[in-house]
Amino acid sequence: VSQVHTYRCPLRWSDMDAFGHVNNSRYLTYLEEARVDLLLNTVGAHGEAMMRDGVLVAHHSIDYTAPLEFRPEPVLIDVWTQKVGGASFTVAYRVYDPATDERDEIVYATASTRLVAFSLATNSVRRLTEGERAFLTAYLQ
Amino acid sequence: VSQVHTYRCPLRWSDMDAFGHVNNSRYLTYLEEARVDLLLNTVGAHGEAMMRDGVLVAHHSIDYTAPLEFRPEPVLIDVWTQKVGGASFTVAYRVYDPATDERDEIVYATASTRLVAFSLATNSVRRLTEGERAFLTAYLQ
Amino acid sequence: VSQVHTYRCPLRWSDMDAFGHVNNSRYLTYLEEARVDLLLNTVGAHGEAMMRDGVLVAHHSIDYTAPLEFRPEPVLIDVWTQKVGGASFTVAYRVYDPATDERDEIVYATASTRLVAFSLATNSVRRLTEGERAFLTAYLQ
Amino acid sequence: VSQVHTYRCPLRWSDMDAFGHVNNSRYLTYLEEARVDLLLNTVGAHGEAMMRDGVLVAHHSIDYTAPLEFRPEPVLIDVWTQKVGGASFTVAYRVYDPATDERDEIVYATASTRLVAFSLATNSVRRLTEGERAFLTAYLQ
Repeated sequence: VSQVHTYRCPLRWSDMDAFGHVNNSRYLTYLEEARVDLLLNTVGAHGEAMMRDGVLVAHHSIDYTAPLEFRPEPVLIDVWTQKVGGASFTVAYRVYDPATDERDEIVYATASTRLVAFSLATNSVRRLTEGERAFLTAYLQ
Repeated sequence: VSQVHTYRCPLRWSDMDAFGHVNNSRYLTYLEEARVDLLLNTVGAHGEAMMRDGVLVAHHSIDYTAPLEFRPEPVLIDVWTQKVGGASFTVAYRVYDPATDERDEIVYATASTRLVAFSLATNSVRRLTEGERAFLTAYLQ
Repeated sequence: VSQVHTYRCPLRWSDMDAFGHVNNSRYLTYLEEARVDLLLNTVGAHGEAMMRDGVLVAHHSIDYTAPLEFRPEPVLIDVWTQKVGGASFTVAYRVYDPATDERDEIVYATASTRLVAFSLATNSVRRLTEGERAFLTAYLQ
Repeated sequence: VSQVHTYRCPLRWSDMDAFGHVNNSRYLTYLEEARVDLLLNTVGAHGEAMMRDGVLVAHHSIDYTAPLEFRPEPVLIDVWTQKVGGASFTVAYRVYDPATDERDEIVYATASTRLVAFSLATNSVRRLTEGERAFLTAYLQ
């Protein structure tokens, strides 16, 4: 049974642009925070080199489905993996407020990112380690 | 014969992240500047309401093909349209340094954005005007 | 007895610049979040107009005392008022990690901001209301 | 006769916040760009290590005197030095639009920054070189 990692993403007042909504480019920063939370704090906690050694972003795709305004409460981001290859993997996300007694779930964006494992030491693409692959596979949907 | 708009995009030292490269989310800001330059300064100069009245970003897709480091010289961004519908249109981009006598062209990213015309007055999606459609069609590849 | 408001400020990985430390300009964003937390969430909860109606930043002064690196844990920001005038007030801050059994307190920055009350309706400076003054005075050191 | 360095600072649409003005913290990014332009491009062109070797920001003081809105034209920033010590120096700035036939000069902000010379190699404060001091003294007002 695979897992989904849920990151509670704090907003900043300054994330809003002149239209009064969170700027579209700022969502990529939110996705980065969710990814760092998964890869650095969670994978890192298992002793794996990922993120410390670097991963490169090769591709982003993002659909904006509802405008988001600043509020003190964090927005939730579900993160999971879609594909785990030899030297790259794809992470998918859902940015949302969960359903409450008063209203349905609100999905602000869905997105995916293709990442390539990188070695800062050799300044080149590297293969994922067995430990990294095992960890990422646990989040595969 | 359709046109391509070329925007000279200035970089900022602070666009770089801890890996010493322009952060991946910052590219969306660069694309936004290229789009604003096309839609506000160029379309706006033709008396059309676009951007003043608002457009919403519905989708981004971006491929990162080479790392970009800060330098005083701007990077070039070619912008053109790919699809012009009744209430939405798609803009495509290429972020690059042109070829010189010493080296080939370097392409840092290619991307596309689907935008939806929006009316701030009625707070809802609106149809593109004939003038807007004519302008956007002139950039259609 | 006057109060100090403590804000738990989350860092973002992308707050770091190419030197691998939180960029100096990003500290002002942290101070803004601390201020919004005090003025919007706390004063606003008392029914006062502040922040909804707007306040202008007139002056910042900030001393950087230690470099700050990204980590998952928030940094603490103490916020209080230093002066409360008829149409303006000064907020002071301390950005720090509290002492633990293993180490002394670490102060990353101390700062102050002079703010001017503003009315978005009349687009001009306005006087602080009695309620606002009472609230701000409760935080006066 | 000492010099003032003038930097033409490009604005970005996303520099504006929900109040529709350039956000106060973004001014520090503008000052940083003006400083990098002076220290990296100008001093660096004279073969000095500064900026490549690192300088630390120790203090900022900034007065905001008029709101700034996005426009395609850059804003001007005058940069000069106020004090040049053994291991630190102070840079001052004026952010403005020059007078034209139609209107007076508009000053958006005045500011100063104390910087400390730093060696990335030894990870500690270092003395300014003779060349750096000579260069900085040429901009002393």
